[in-house]
Amino acid sequence: MQQVTVTTPGKSYGIWLERDFSQLEAAIKGLNKNYSRIAVISDDQVGPLYIGDVKAAIADLGLPVFSHMFTHGEEHKHYGTMNEMYRFLIENQFDRKTLLIALGGGVTGDMVGFLAATYMRGVDFVQVPTSLLAQVDSSSGGKTGIDFEGYKNIVGAFYQPELVYISTETLRTLPKAEFANGMGEAIKHGLIQDYEYFHYIKEHSQAIQDLEHEAIAKLIGRSVEIKANVVSQDEKEHGLRAILNFGHTIGHAVEKMKEFKLFHGQCVGLGIVASTYISLQLGELTLEEREEILEVLRSYHLLLKTEGLLAEDVYQELFYDKKTSHSTINIVLLKGIGTCYQNTSLSKELIMSGIEAIL
Amino acid sequence: MQQVTVTTPGKSYGIWLERDFSQLEAAIKGLNKNYSRIAVISDDQVGPLYIGDVKAAIADLGLPVFSHMFTHGEEHKHYGTMNEMYRFLIENQFDRKTLLIALGGGVTGDMVGFLAATYMRGVDFVQVPTSLLAQVDSSSGGKTGIDFEGYKNIVGAFYQPELVYISTETLRTLPKAEFANGMGEAIKHGLIQDYEYFHYIKEHSQAIQDLEHEAIAKLIGRSVEIKANVVSQDEKEHGLRAILNFGHTIGHAVEKMKEFKLFHGQCVGLGIVASTYISLQLGELTLEEREEILEVLRSYHLLLKTEGLLAEDVYQELFYDKKTSHSTINIVLLKGIGTCYQNTSLSKELIMSGIEAIL
Repeated sequence: MQQVTVTTPGKSYGIWLERDFSQLEAAIKGLNKNYSRIAVISDDQVGPLYIGDVKAAIADLGLPVFSHMFTHGEEHKHYGTMNEMYRFLIENQFDRKTLLIALGGGVTGDMVGFLAATYMRGVDFVQVPTSLLAQVDSSSGGKTGIDFEGYKNIVGAFYQPELVYISTETLRTLPKAEFANGMGEAIKHGLIQDYEYFHYIKEHSQAIQDLEHEAIAKLIGRSVEIKANVVSQDEKEHGLRAILNFGHTIGHAVEKMKEFKLFHGQCVGLGIVASTYISLQLGELTLEEREEILEVLRSYHLLLKTEGLLAEDVYQELFYDKKTSHSTINIVLLKGIGTCYQNTSLSKELIMSGIEAIL
Repeated sequence: MQQVTVTTPGKSYGIWLERDFSQLEAAIKGLNKNYSRIAVISDDQVGPLYIGDVKAAIADLGLPVFSHMFTHGEEHKHYGTMNEMYRFLIENQFDRKTLLIALGGGVTGDMVGFLAATYMRGVDFVQVPTSLLAQVDSSSGGKTGIDFEGYKNIVGAFYQPELVYISTETLRTLPKAEFANGMGEAIKHGLIQDYEYFHYIKEHSQAIQDLEHEAIAKLIGRSVEIKANVVSQDEKEHGLRAILNFGHTIGHAVEKMKEFKLFHGQCVGLGIVASTYISLQLGELTLEEREEILEVLRSYHLLLKTEGLLAEDVYQELFYDKKTSHSTINIVLLKGIGTCYQNTSLSKELIMSGIEAIL
């Protein structure tokens, strides 16, 4: 239906945007790899819904297909769950010619990607994201990893998939709250790079939330284009890619302080609210633009405030974020809607004012 | 003193061969990176001997230098030890501009390399190998990893260091038994690629074992050249690099069956004995050549036989080796001394005869 290409120094791969799983077999065949066996890995929420469909869709490849499910949730995104997966692969004699299929949301993609990056020093994998968050954002770009003792994604690798396959029909089983979760990232894409896209999101709130096919395909398609374009220029986040962290620096700190009980996209939304408040203070965003952004966040059921945190605690948490280098804080800010830049010289007062705007 | 370059698609780096640590600072300065802090990581055997020297050697860089020691031994090469190291880095606020120094033998290099590959999705590291095994072989080439439930290096990554720095004086504190351990790999290098080098090793057994500087420098220098040349052509072992597994397929199986109680180089030596027996059966090695190989192994105190194993068990273990693809066994064999090839169509009888030759 629609394809977007991600090009990194080591690999080029396609993002397939389809209505259902009917093209997955063709997509895998198109890789022209001599796989020995396939493992479909999912969590115990998504697995029962779609493992059967995926297995049926790829049956004609004629390869042994195994499946494995792990307990869902960010709190299981750790080495204990990884170890279960290594054991599953070893017990079933998966070798270097293995293809892993990551079927699920962001946690599944991150963990199965890290599994692919580290099993036998690297095997192939395919991302099949089923949540809006994973479809618009985390499934492409090659960031993989697990949490460690409260530090999000602090153990991980840059490891690109062979392809990303998006079936939009999986969104029909996505809980409403998780839909908002994905919108945090989609809105971010518009804000940092594309005023028109932001405007589209604003104008089509109902159609998008009703999962009207044309609207949702346009949403996912434009988000993956923006993401692919940034990643193609800077795979390992030496510079440009950091703009994708818009809303994430403060967002991650909130996510951590809330012990991961808030959805990631909700935290990104809060980070956007905080960052745009800073931009407003700097005169780089008008009051009208900020109101427009808050209105869009609100229309997709994203939070504008959270409770129970102290601004100083959130501020201190910023210094433990893994993106913090040399103890300076890099915050992505807007200059109007659709343009952004990285600011590493913000005063504590200005950052604190942004944090206070969400408390 | 001497430098060898390893060139991979993503990175080119130097192997420095020096008498002592006096050039380490210059080597790191030459990287022209803006590091925030350095961690010297070692085990509790090598650390007390050399961490002080290394810290003194790099003091003028003017960077904060931390050190961490873990319990030595292959049996600690697991995720528990990795987790201690992640914790150490997090507690000391190591960020993405971190430089790790892996100071020690093969286990240290593999684990600290994997730490560098996975901490914050990848930070820089320098290999400072102190054992002969690590100097001639494992410190260059970018194979990193840990063991998992008895499976050697089954969790890991290809991740190249920024440089490898070899101080030959560290061999003075290396136990005699571990010296033989390194010779298994050095002899392998001669056998697969360079008859003259094999001959040099044969003729200079005394000078090499007495650590005479010229002899040991020639040994390490030629081994790293051979290794660098192979890795430069095939970093991720899609083809040619597999020749470095000469002696390793059967060697790994023995190592595993012996529960890692035999030194790796000793197991490689046993693998060489088994493989050369197969080559002899195939008429690709003369009886005289095989005797010459056994004589050299013996002169460096490498084992020619081991006890307490059943040939059938070792054979079955081959199928669990991570290099086994599609359940075929790839064994590297010699065609005379200095030339090798990969054979994937050996009969069970022939492989069994090789295994029986070492039991």
